Amino acid sequence: MSNTVGKPITCKAAVCWAAGEPLKLEDVEVAPPQAHEVRIRILWTGICHTDEYTRSGKDPEGLFPVILGHEGGGVVESVGEGVTSVAVGDHVIPLYTAECRECKFCKSGKTNLCGAVRATQGKGLMPNNTSRFSIDGKLIHHFMGTSTFSQYTVVADVSVVAVNKKAPLEKVCLLGCGITTAWGAVAKQSGIKGSNVAVFGVGAIGLGVLSTSSQIGASRIIAIDTNPKKEEWAKKFGATEFINPLDLPEGKKIQDHLVEITDGGLDFTFDCTGNVHVMRAALEACHKGWGVSTIIGVAAAGQEISTRPFMLVTGRVWRGTAFGGVKGRTEIPGLVEDYLGGKLKVDEYVTHHRKLADIYEGFHDMHAGDCIRCVVDMS
Amino acid sequence: MSNTVGKPITCKAAVCWAAGEPLKLEDVEVAPPQAHEVRIRILWTGICHTDEYTRSGKDPEGLFPVILGHEGGGVVESVGEGVTSVAVGDHVIPLYTAECRECKFCKSGKTNLCGAVRATQGKGLMPNNTSRFSIDGKLIHHFMGTSTFSQYTVVADVSVVAVNKKAPLEKVCLLGCGITTAWGAVAKQSGIKGSNVAVFGVGAIGLGVLSTSSQIGASRIIAIDTNPKKEEWAKKFGATEFINPLDLPEGKKIQDHLVEITDGGLDFTFDCTGNVHVMRAALEACHKGWGVSTIIGVAAAGQEISTRPFMLVTGRVWRGTAFGGVKGRTEIPGLVEDYLGGKLKVDEYVTHHRKLADIYEGFHDMHAGDCIRCVVDMS
Repeated sequence: MSNTVGKPITCKAAVCWAAGEPLKLEDVEVAPPQAHEVRIRILWTGICHTDEYTRSGKDPEGLFPVILGHEGGGVVESVGEGVTSVAVGDHVIPLYTAECRECKFCKSGKTNLCGAVRATQGKGLMPNNTSRFSIDGKLIHHFMGTSTFSQYTVVADVSVVAVNKKAPLEKVCLLGCGITTAWGAVAKQSGIKGSNVAVFGVGAIGLGVLSTSSQIGASRIIAIDTNPKKEEWAKKFGATEFINPLDLPEGKKIQDHLVEITDGGLDFTFDCTGNVHVMRAALEACHKGWGVSTIIGVAAAGQEISTRPFMLVTGRVWRGTAFGGVKGRTEIPGLVEDYLGGKLKVDEYVTHHRKLADIYEGFHDMHAGDCIRCVVDMS
Repeated sequence: MSNTVGKPITCKAAVCWAAGEPLKLEDVEVAPPQAHEVRIRILWTGICHTDEYTRSGKDPEGLFPVILGHEGGGVVESVGEGVTSVAVGDHVIPLYTAECRECKFCKSGKTNLCGAVRATQGKGLMPNNTSRFSIDGKLIHHFMGTSTFSQYTVVADVSVVAVNKKAPLEKVCLLGCGITTAWGAVAKQSGIKGSNVAVFGVGAIGLGVLSTSSQIGASRIIAIDTNPKKEEWAKKFGATEFINPLDLPEGKKIQDHLVEITDGGLDFTFDCTGNVHVMRAALEACHKGWGVSTIIGVAAAGQEISTRPFMLVTGRVWRGTAFGGVKGRTEIPGLVEDYLGGKLKVDEYVTHHRKLADIYEGFHDMHAGDCIRCVVDMS
C-alpha cells in the first residue's frame, strides 16, 4: 500500500449528486492527506437514517454533490504532517463528533461537542476549506467529516480513533454512530439503576437504549413502537414490556397510559424516533418531581417541540444528547474492549449485508421495518 | 387568646367573590382546627402575582368565592388533635408546598413536591374535603392551602413551619414564596460559582435570583428587563450588567445578542417572567453543550413553550422549579437564620405597605412598575 502515499488514489465511492437522487457508484479521486489529516481505507460502513435524511433533501443544510456515510471502519493508509494520534495500519473508526482536547468545549469537562472542525465540517470541507474528493476535477463534498461511503476517505486527525485490531471492523464500525449514541445516552446519566425507563422507538438506537438500561439494572423497561414486529426485538434487548400505542383505546394518549401504569410516570424516558410529537409524549410520560426525558432522535428541519411549561415547573427535565455525550477518541476504545469482552452487544444489530455496488439497496432495507442495521462491504 | 380555642373566630378577611372582581373586606367565620390542622393569626402577608392571576380569572383552576394570599407570617392560635410540629404561640410561615415527609415524593429525596394534601388543596378545601371559612353559612374556599388574606386562617400541619421569634414576621413572611423560590432555584444547582448567568425579569423573583447568584459567586450576572427603571434595582441586587431588549436593533433577538456577548451563551439562565416567549429566549441564550435554563415564572393557562429540538440535542437543558425546590419545613428555618445573620436579603424587597382595609390597592401597586413587594398589615 505504501506506493500510494502522497499520491491521489482513485477508488469507488457512492456519490449523491443532488438532493433526492439515488446514490451512484463513481470513480472518485481522493487526494493525499494534508497536515493533521488521515487517509483511511474504509472496509465496512453502516447506513444510518441521518444519511437518508440528507440524501432525501430534507436536511436544509445538505450540500451536493456529496459522499455520505458516517458509521465506518477502516485501516489508516497514510497520514499527513503532524499526525500523532493514529499511525499507518491502525484499525480506526472515523468520528463525526471530533475531539481535539484543546477547545473551550473539550476543556470544559461538560460536553462531548468539540469546536475544532465544526465550521468546515458543516460546509462539507476539510479544516483548510478544501475537499479531498473530486471527480474529473469537480469538487465532491465531505459529509459529517467522515464520508464512509468511499473506499478511501480523508478525515481530520481529531476525527478518528484507533481501536483494538482483534475487533472485526465489520461489526465495530457500528460504534461510529448508533450503538455508541444509545450507550452514552443511558450510561452517562446517574440513577438509571433501579429506575423505570421508557424507550420510544425500537430502531438501532432504541435497542441500544434498552440494552444499556437493562445492563445497568433499570427495574422496569418499557419499549414503545407502532410496529408490532418490534416487540420480539425489544425483549431480546432487555425490554420488560412492550406497548404499541396503536393498541390503546381511541383518544388515549400514550403518555397518559404510561403515567397510569407506572404510578405517576417514568424516571427516565428516551426519544429515539426524531418525531417531535413523540418527543412531547416522552417528556410528559415522566414522573412529576424528577423524571428526565432525553431526546436522541433528530427531527426534521423546521419542526419544533412544545409542551406546557407546567411540565417543567413541576420537576421534569428536558434534555438531549448528540453522539450520546461520548468523547470518541477517549471512550470508543473502551467500548470496543467491552464488545470483545462480551459486555456490549454489537453483532446483534446487524440484520442486513450489502456490497458497495448495492449500497443504495441498503437505503431501501432501512425502510422495510425488519432492518436494524445494514452493513456494507466496501472492498 | 386562649378563650378562642375550640371555637369559631369571626375576623376580617379580603374575599374575592368571583373571578375578576376586586377583593372585598368581609367578616368571615373561621372554624377551629380539626385533627392535624393549625389555626394561625396572620399578622403580615405579601401580595404576589399568583394571587392576582387567580383573582383575575385567568387561572382556569381558580375557585370562588375564595380567600387568596400565600405569603404570610403569623402566630399559632390553636392546634387540632395530633399536631406536634408546631405549638400555640409559635411564629410560623404557612407553606403552599406541603412537606409531609411520608409520601413517595417526600421520601424520594429528589423533589420538594409533596403529595399529602395536593388533591384537596387544589379543590380549595382542607384535607377532609371541607372548608374552615364561611360567611353566613356560605362556604368560602381556601387558596393554595394558606389563605393568608384573612386575620385567621387554618392550614394542614404539614403546611406550616415555625421560625425563630427574633425575626420580624413583617419581613420574613416574604419567605413564604418569592424570596425562597428565587434562592432555591439558584442555590440548589451546582456550578453557579464562576459561571455566567442571565436573569429574565427583574421582579421580586428576578432580584432574588440575582442576589443569590451574586452571593454564590457567579462571575457575570446579566439582568434583562424591558423596564429601564429596573436597572438600578438589578445592580443593587448583584447584576453586573443590565440589558433592555427594547434597546436592541430592530429584529435582533435577545438570545442572539446574549450568545454573542458571552462567547457562545450563558451557563445558566432563569425565566422569572411567566412569558412563554421569554422562556424560549432564556433557553436559546444558553451555551451549547452545557447551558441550563430554569423556568420559575408561571405561565398563563393554555400557553405552551416551544423550541427546536436541536437546542436540546446540542446539550442545553430545560428545567423548572416550584417553590425553588425548597422543602419548607426543613429549610425555611435556616433561611430565617441566614436573614438574621445578614446573609439573606429580605428587607430590601419591601417597597410598599398597606393596611388590610386597603389590600386591594396593593394589587394595583404590583402593576405600577416600581413595586417589588407590598406587605400588608393584617392587624
